[in-house]
Amino acid sequence: MTVKISHSDSIQQFFKEASGFNNDAGDSRLKTVINRILVDTAKIVEELEITQDEFWKAVDYINRLGGRNEAGLLAAGLGLEHYLDLLQDAKDEQQGLVGGTPRTIEGPLYVAGAPVVEGEARMDDGSEDAVATPMFLQGRVTGPDGQPVAGAVVDLWHANTKGNYSYFDKSQSEYNLRRRIVTDENGYYRARSIVPSGYGCSPDGPTQECLDLLGRHGQRPAHIHFFISAPGHRHLTTQINLAGDRYLWDDFAYATRDGLIGDIHFNDDPEAAHARGVEGRFAEVVFDFQLQQAPAPEAEQRSQRPRALQEA
Amino acid sequence: MTVKISHSDSIQQFFKEASGFNNDAGDSRLKTVINRILVDTAKIVEELEITQDEFWKAVDYINRLGGRNEAGLLAAGLGLEHYLDLLQDAKDEQQGLVGGTPRTIEGPLYVAGAPVVEGEARMDDGSEDAVATPMFLQGRVTGPDGQPVAGAVVDLWHANTKGNYSYFDKSQSEYNLRRRIVTDENGYYRARSIVPSGYGCSPDGPTQECLDLLGRHGQRPAHIHFFISAPGHRHLTTQINLAGDRYLWDDFAYATRDGLIGDIHFNDDPEAAHARGVEGRFAEVVFDFQLQQAPAPEAEQRSQRPRALQEA
Repeated sequence: MTVKISHSDSIQQFFKEASGFNNDAGDSRLKTVINRILVDTAKIVEELEITQDEFWKAVDYINRLGGRNEAGLLAAGLGLEHYLDLLQDAKDEQQGLVGGTPRTIEGPLYVAGAPVVEGEARMDDGSEDAVATPMFLQGRVTGPDGQPVAGAVVDLWHANTKGNYSYFDKSQSEYNLRRRIVTDENGYYRARSIVPSGYGCSPDGPTQECLDLLGRHGQRPAHIHFFISAPGHRHLTTQINLAGDRYLWDDFAYATRDGLIGDIHFNDDPEAAHARGVEGRFAEVVFDFQLQQAPAPEAEQRSQRPRALQEA
Repeated sequence: MTVKISHSDSIQQFFKEASGFNNDAGDSRLKTVINRILVDTAKIVEELEITQDEFWKAVDYINRLGGRNEAGLLAAGLGLEHYLDLLQDAKDEQQGLVGGTPRTIEGPLYVAGAPVVEGEARMDDGSEDAVATPMFLQGRVTGPDGQPVAGAVVDLWHANTKGNYSYFDKSQSEYNLRRRIVTDENGYYRARSIVPSGYGCSPDGPTQECLDLLGRHGQRPAHIHFFISAPGHRHLTTQINLAGDRYLWDDFAYATRDGLIGDIHFNDDPEAAHARGVEGRFAEVVFDFQLQQAPAPEAEQRSQRPRALQEA
């Protein structure tokens, strides 16, 4: 028979004490949150009859998860990051904040401080020239009225041909495949880069370990991340997921959304390549973004999520 | 107004998908647990109106917590380890498994494989001779009938004068202050060691960071950890907490319990010291343990909690 004690006065009081309710110091918001987590954890332990072995395995897992810096990856893989997007969508709808390009997850691999470029940005360092397909990416940033937004900052990042990201993959050069492009007077951003491969969780990492036990893979389609910001406009966190990828609608991080599929056109015409300044096959992606008006000045900024900052 | 979506069919289905309910591979128990965690997490986010910034701060905290290997320390500090003891007590009571020395928390600092000693064990390596007070610790292990248990393994570990544990404190020698003592024919274990100091969380660690925000300290009274096991008897995980310590009943890990207070007697008599083979002040602690009968063979073993194993 299931034994339950967490509803008792003594345990409720104990969790209040542990959460700091019996003192006047500290942060009252965190006390409330921690208390809720303790009460809910105890309920899970009792209702699912979590064994001591299971509990300590979970504690050990958290140590290993954090030891590999994968908590953000797991939050994406378990769908919590996508859930937060859906919740924000619902909040927006309630407030009539609708329209424009959909948001989708940021993921854990952004690095702040990428080089700022006016005009066409060259994003790759050329180190994969022998294996990569050049990709020309461009599009227009418009406001809610459809008018171009000049001077918007298109902060984009994507993986290399191995599906790896600079900074986290130490073999890549600093800020490889990461740029901040300022839109021109007609709202255009333009980049020359390389076609990215899809991302996969580290096979020996704790996120993949969990996914394996859930019978799930840890693969993402090829995609390009974007932060787009401009004065007066609401910050947009989104991604283009590339059409044709086998994981397009089977993304372990659930980032693919209608309105965020990027068509990629491969071109084998030598003359077109020559005109682009490349040789052989290349790819073209055109993707426009529409921003919402910022309902308040804070809305121009991205969240305060802790992020990596590459040291100079 | 609070916006809630987690009760909707589409979100419930989404969390089932993320938990692997839509495939036949993996581990069905983990799927159930993960699904419950996802649903409860979303409820907390909605009901406490957790912001994006708060959510990602928590994710970052888990990375930092695991990065310092402190998840077990936090589980103790937030009272979850003590709660598990109370829950086990309630389960035992329901099954009539009562009597004997109380259990209390293991904590995260056990290391498997300590030297096995028959007769009196010398536990300290002598490196703190100049500052430490020698401590003579002894007691008897009995069974439920009060009869001595010969050949019981008393696996004990404690901190040095700085409150630090060998293996985790790399400045200490291998297995310093860790021994497995086999009880003699009369059920006695005997150790010469040094009086431990109380443990305190790393001031710059994530556990202390959380405790600070809860207005709580991160200190423990001086104490000695025990695993006691013997064939036919139920494994006992417990601690002696030393009387007179200012944190005896203000232990951040809530390990102190009635029936587990160890009286420590300091002796300044030079002749008594000489008879003990030491010089100057020394301390004596006498503590007996009573084991329960093992209700099943598995009960003779400690939990499968992942533990540190010092390499030879």
